[in-house]
Order: sequence, then C-alpha cells, then structure tokens
Amino acid sequence: MLLENIKVIAFDADDTLWVNEPFFRSAEAKFEQILEKYLGPKDVQKALYDNEVKNLHLFGYGAKGFMLAMIETALELTNYQIAGEDIQKLIIMGKEILSYKIDLYRDVPETLEYLSQRYKVICITKGDLLDQESKVARSGVGDFFDSIHVVNDKKPQTYSKIINSLGVDPSEFLMIGNSLKSDILPVITVGGKAIYIPCEQPWVHEVVSEDKVDKTTFVEISSMSEFLNRVRA
Amino acid sequence: MLLENIKVIAFDADDTLWVNEPFFRSAEAKFEQILEKYLGPKDVQKALYDNEVKNLHLFGYGAKGFMLAMIETALELTNYQIAGEDIQKLIIMGKEILSYKIDLYRDVPETLEYLSQRYKVICITKGDLLDQESKVARSGVGDFFDSIHVVNDKKPQTYSKIINSLGVDPSEFLMIGNSLKSDILPVITVGGKAIYIPCEQPWVHEVVSEDKVDKTTFVEISSMSEFLNRVRA
Repeated sequence: MLLENIKVIAFDADDTLWVNEPFFRSAEAKFEQILEKYLGPKDVQKALYDNEVKNLHLFGYGAKGFMLAMIETALELTNYQIAGEDIQKLIIMGKEILSYKIDLYRDVPETLEYLSQRYKVICITKGDLLDQESKVARSGVGDFFDSIHVVNDKKPQTYSKIINSLGVDPSEFLMIGNSLKSDILPVITVGGKAIYIPCEQPWVHEVVSEDKVDKTTFVEISSMSEFLNRVRA
Repeated sequence: MLLENIKVIAFDADDTLWVNEPFFRSAEAKFEQILEKYLGPKDVQKALYDNEVKNLHLFGYGAKGFMLAMIETALELTNYQIAGEDIQKLIIMGKEILSYKIDLYRDVPETLEYLSQRYKVICITKGDLLDQESKVARSGVGDFFDSIHVVNDKKPQTYSKIINSLGVDPSEFLMIGNSLKSDILPVITVGGKAIYIPCEQPWVHEVVSEDKVDKTTFVEISSMSEFLNRVRA
C-alpha cells in the first residue's frame, strides 16, 4: 500500500508538477551561442555552473541568481569586452524564465484533486520566493495545497521543521519529487517516506551518483499518471 | 497600556531592528558616480527607481532585483555603451549589500529578550528569502523569534493569513515597524495594533503622504530604546 499510514503528502513543484529545467537548459544553450562570437566554440557551461555554485550562499536557488551568474560569467570569459546589447539579451532570457507559461505534467490536477480530498496536501519548493509563489498561482493548482513552503534549501532539518510544524510523525509524511538529492534522501534521513519521479533534464547540481543511493528506502515511479493509477487502484 | 491584551508581537526586520536602507542609498550614490563619466552630472535615480518598480512583479523586493535594475538602467542610460568593468562594479556593490555586517539599533537584543519571555515574538520581513534569513541569522537575535516569515509583500491579506495561522484574534496582534505603508496601515486595516518607529532614509516606494494617514489608529515611538522603556515602565 503506497499511502498506508500517511497523513501529509508534500509535493516538490519544479519538474515534479510542471516543466522547469528545460527552460534553464535552453537558456544555457542560448548563452553559449551569444558567447561564441567572442570565444569561438567553447564549452562555457562549466564556468557558468561554477559561478552559480560559488554564489549560491549569496543568491540562493532560482532565476535571479542564474541571471546574475550568466552576466558575471560573460564578463569574465570575454575579459569584460562583451557588448551591452548582449548583456541585455541575458537579462531578457532571465525575465522569460521568470514568466514562462506553466506546462503541467499529465494528470497533475487530477492527482492533486484526488489526494487533497483524502490527505493534507502541501507544496515544498526551493528558489526565489516571488517566483515560486507566482508559478504556483499561474499553475492553477494552488488551491489544492493546504500550504506552500518556499525554502532556501532542502536539507534534513528543513523537512524536520516542516513536519514538526504540521504536528505529524515523520513516518506519516510522504514527499514526492524529482530530485534524489533534495526531495528524497533528506526526507528518508529524518524518517519520512518518499516517492521519486525522475525528470528528463536535471540540473547537474541536483544529480546524485547512483551508488550513493539505497533504492530500497523509497519508491520510484515513472510518471504522475502512473502514481495516480497506483493510488486509485 | 501599550501591550494590553496583546498575545503576539511581530517585528519588521530591515530598518526596524537594524540599519538597511542606508546601504541602498549609498549604493545609489555610487551608481550615480559610475554613470557620471558617461552622462555628465545627471539625476539617474528616477530611471533606476522606475526600473525597480517596473520589475517588482518579476523580481520582488530585495538586493538581487536591485542589482538587476542597476544593470538594466546603466545599459539603457548609456545606450549600451557602459564598460564591462563598470557592470562588474555594480555586481560587486550588490554582493556587498547581500553580506553587510548587521548593525542592530540600540536596545534591540534587550527588547527582544524582554518580550520573548512574556509574549510570542515573531519576525515578518519582505525581500529575498535567502537574504532575509541570512540577515536574521547574522544578527544574533534570531533565537528570540518563535518564527520568521519572509513574505513577497505586506498587504492586509498577508497579515490576515499569518494572524489566522497563529490562532489569535487580530486585536491580540501587534506589529512594530518603520514603514507606514508596509508595517502599519495594512495591520490596522485587518484589525491589528501597530507601533510605528520611523527610520531616517526610507526608500521612496515605502513613503506614504502624511495626509493619507490617521495618526490616531497607531502609536508612534521615536526609537527601540524608548519603546523598551515604555513597556518596562
């Protein structure tokens, strides 16, 4: 029984409920294109990634930090010679990420509707506060959530705090998400349950090598539709 | 009796507990200086402010949006001719704002300690999630708060939601802050109590013209020290 003994079901948002990472991957490809006329064909992704990670402690996760990392990386790699017009293009790309049309995965509204009638359903998402709340609002599924928690980071203590505030036992808490690193492993660590629904183009920062993962501690399901079929069965 | 019937006391953070706006005012002055060599002596503040407000719906409040607004404004005003080195200076200025040393106003720790022994004390602050939580952590007074609420905006419904979640009546809720627009008027609107402690260099966006304010609906106190003296009396 997938949901036996569960009282609270928490969903990650980006790439669990809707497509998100592909917008970043596509921006990274455009970024590489813009820099090509300065640098020739060169792999600029590593420099961009390094700047993103270097600034995480100041900027946190999300599109604004990504925009600033693109600008810094472009300045550094071109030795500050990049044209103002090209920097403007980076800002426009970032603004597009902040306003993209939400494309829900198949059966997401049906799943949330079904579960919200039977369990307390919440959303736990990482990123910029306004951006994450705006996406939930734009998604049209915000009303299914009892509460929405935008957090800086998804560490074991992040989950403990939320579970405590809900007044349930960790064993009664189920997290559903696409990131082993952020949605699954820290929840298992604090005694919760987790369902892993992988996505197609994860950010390198979220990837955990398979040998570090004990696959017996959580359930892996291929899609939200399959999950819905299994809980309804 | 200042705190009669009060059960929850909420504090704004920036410019109520510690100095914040002067870092932005100082960055704005440096911004003007950097652009002077392109534009001559010119008032660039209005263009910067307009970009900040225009982007609020995407970037929200906080230092990252401020950095991006400075970069956009600099590109626009210089017709994209600004040097890469000068854009880098804007990024560095923004990073300094994100990591400034917290300078608490006089008697803030004493006030929070005194109140937290007698009331539920919380913090309600607007801005970037990571930045606001980082400032509370750096301030050394985070432990006095029962909870910290980082919000996108301080509208009446923002306060209603928090007051409801605390299970108290609005009349038992007191907000203390430096912004009539964000900390005082919306709280009065939902039936709460408010104490206004003005700060010296408010952001134009937070200023409300005096004739829109009914000063009989809240208490104005000149400093945290005066507030502490009055509650201890």
